[in-house]
Amino acid sequence: MSRDTSLTPDDAGSSSTVGSVGEFGLIARVTAGRTYPDTVLLGPGDDAAVVAAADGRVVVTTDMLVEGRHFRRDWSSPRDIGRKAIAQNGADIAAMGARCTAFVVALSCPADLTVADAEDLNAGLWDEASRAGAAVVGGDVTAGDHLVVSVTALGDLAGASPIRRDGARPGDVLAVSGPTGASAAGYALLAASVQGHPDLRAAHRVPRPDYDAGPAAAAAGATAMCDVSDGLLADAAHLAAASGVLLAVESARLPIPSLLRQAATELGVDVLDWALAGGEDHALLATFPDDDALPPGWTAVGRVGEVGDVGAGTVTVDGTEWTGARGWTSF
Amino acid sequence: MSRDTSLTPDDAGSSSTVGSVGEFGLIARVTAGRTYPDTVLLGPGDDAAVVAAADGRVVVTTDMLVEGRHFRRDWSSPRDIGRKAIAQNGADIAAMGARCTAFVVALSCPADLTVADAEDLNAGLWDEASRAGAAVVGGDVTAGDHLVVSVTALGDLAGASPIRRDGARPGDVLAVSGPTGASAAGYALLAASVQGHPDLRAAHRVPRPDYDAGPAAAAAGATAMCDVSDGLLADAAHLAAASGVLLAVESARLPIPSLLRQAATELGVDVLDWALAGGEDHALLATFPDDDALPPGWTAVGRVGEVGDVGAGTVTVDGTEWTGARGWTSF
Repeated sequence: MSRDTSLTPDDAGSSSTVGSVGEFGLIARVTAGRTYPDTVLLGPGDDAAVVAAADGRVVVTTDMLVEGRHFRRDWSSPRDIGRKAIAQNGADIAAMGARCTAFVVALSCPADLTVADAEDLNAGLWDEASRAGAAVVGGDVTAGDHLVVSVTALGDLAGASPIRRDGARPGDVLAVSGPTGASAAGYALLAASVQGHPDLRAAHRVPRPDYDAGPAAAAAGATAMCDVSDGLLADAAHLAAASGVLLAVESARLPIPSLLRQAATELGVDVLDWALAGGEDHALLATFPDDDALPPGWTAVGRVGEVGDVGAGTVTVDGTEWTGARGWTSF
Repeated sequence: MSRDTSLTPDDAGSSSTVGSVGEFGLIARVTAGRTYPDTVLLGPGDDAAVVAAADGRVVVTTDMLVEGRHFRRDWSSPRDIGRKAIAQNGADIAAMGARCTAFVVALSCPADLTVADAEDLNAGLWDEASRAGAAVVGGDVTAGDHLVVSVTALGDLAGASPIRRDGARPGDVLAVSGPTGASAAGYALLAASVQGHPDLRAAHRVPRPDYDAGPAAAAAGATAMCDVSDGLLADAAHLAAASGVLLAVESARLPIPSLLRQAATELGVDVLDWALAGGEDHALLATFPDDDALPPGWTAVGRVGEVGDVGAGTVTVDGTEWTGARGWTSF
């Protein structure tokens, strides 16, 4: 947990390293001058932080980003990495129908990481935490060979029931909160060193979850919901398995921006591969009792069906059981 | 966050690896058959967990353990590593005067880690979480070159005020909740390959915080408190700086078990170096209004003084300003 921030950091320039200013010097720098919302009852600097949980319950999720696995420092700036680490955790809070209240961050970094880079990473954490309506209330910094950013997000349900993955019922409408595939497209462009398409490349570096979409879906009566992190079909399969249903996706209804289609044509790939199998956009996937229930911004992309002869967890695309790439796996 | 645990793991033996069973297979194995306290309203398997926060506030802290830095796999079993990761976070919750309610764990591990080792690590996480009166409610598993275990602990204050580091006042009594130095002694024994002293070696591998000591100190009117993770003097300096006071330690009053003295004699070191500068025992250091206030198990080791001519944050040992090793630093 963050330590005493009253310790004075060394008077080192921006070219100094994390190793030279030390753990306490770095923490003093990254917490200096921050202001906290009223819901942060005790911020960084003690053994632990204290955050309001007015609802009497707290939603909690954790996700770790590892250098070389979830990001490349030659593709992503430290600020991008910080934003991404917060975004993917904040999206998990939104996927329960909750709003983010606080983040804590544990960071392992090489001692030769510059203080400037560490401060940029911290700025990214704070930027995205602010976008999510919350603050970074504590953390830990330690030495390690690689950059590892581990974030835990807390959220508040404001009296609502959490929207789980297991509530989808046959007849429900399947919907997404926004387009999927931009992160996969950005990855493909970066990997192929194809120029142009700055928006898609940025989408890979920094997902931009709509943190309001989750609570809006909950208020609209969503029956099940999850974050699309592994790919639309992969996450649909998780939701279908948890709910004991089949999910039938209609590809023609997927929201696919024209710039995504253009990039797919340029690279000679099927745009549906990106939209259906690409992960890390952190759109939300949810089921609703009927079409009229969808909140603004959500798009119906299919229907919840009976399992019938196929197994629970089956996902079909245009009536055919999907057998292609189901998205990203960790190992 | 933990994913759908209804996915069936591969039918792989204990010699199989994390890489072969995959993220979902591993998560299914480590969450199978677990039961959760009533305060866990939604456990692993969804985008996030939901934990009761009856107090209307939640205490939160995070700490990361990195292989080669915080533990060595040739010294510590996977179970030891899991226990240590929970213990050092749980101690931070106790240091606020709170009780642990839940832990989330993000794990990065090499794909060739055996499933048996991963399950042992998980058993250690659960053993210590249970000791702390809480459960592991969620997590994340990802591939990485080294084993990194990042834990976030949540806690409940049960209506009490959090005990911060900045409340010590001149005239208060300085006390510790238990002996310090055993972890440092165990480290020295392991590093020197000295046989014997199994209790001290175990103390380095797995700290055993007294999770009740923090809430007991809070109930007894502690004015300031912190966890001893960096070393008694180092953490005393943090508390002294935060409170704007001087802390005067009397070495003769330190609780030093005879087995610690014996090991020090064997290795030819001053036992006070271990007791004053050794970290990671996770005893608690606190200040109380007077000697009569100390709860059972706590030992008075000094007094809070005015800053006078020296700076806030000064710590003296037997009247002399401490200038020796102040404990462990991250970089």
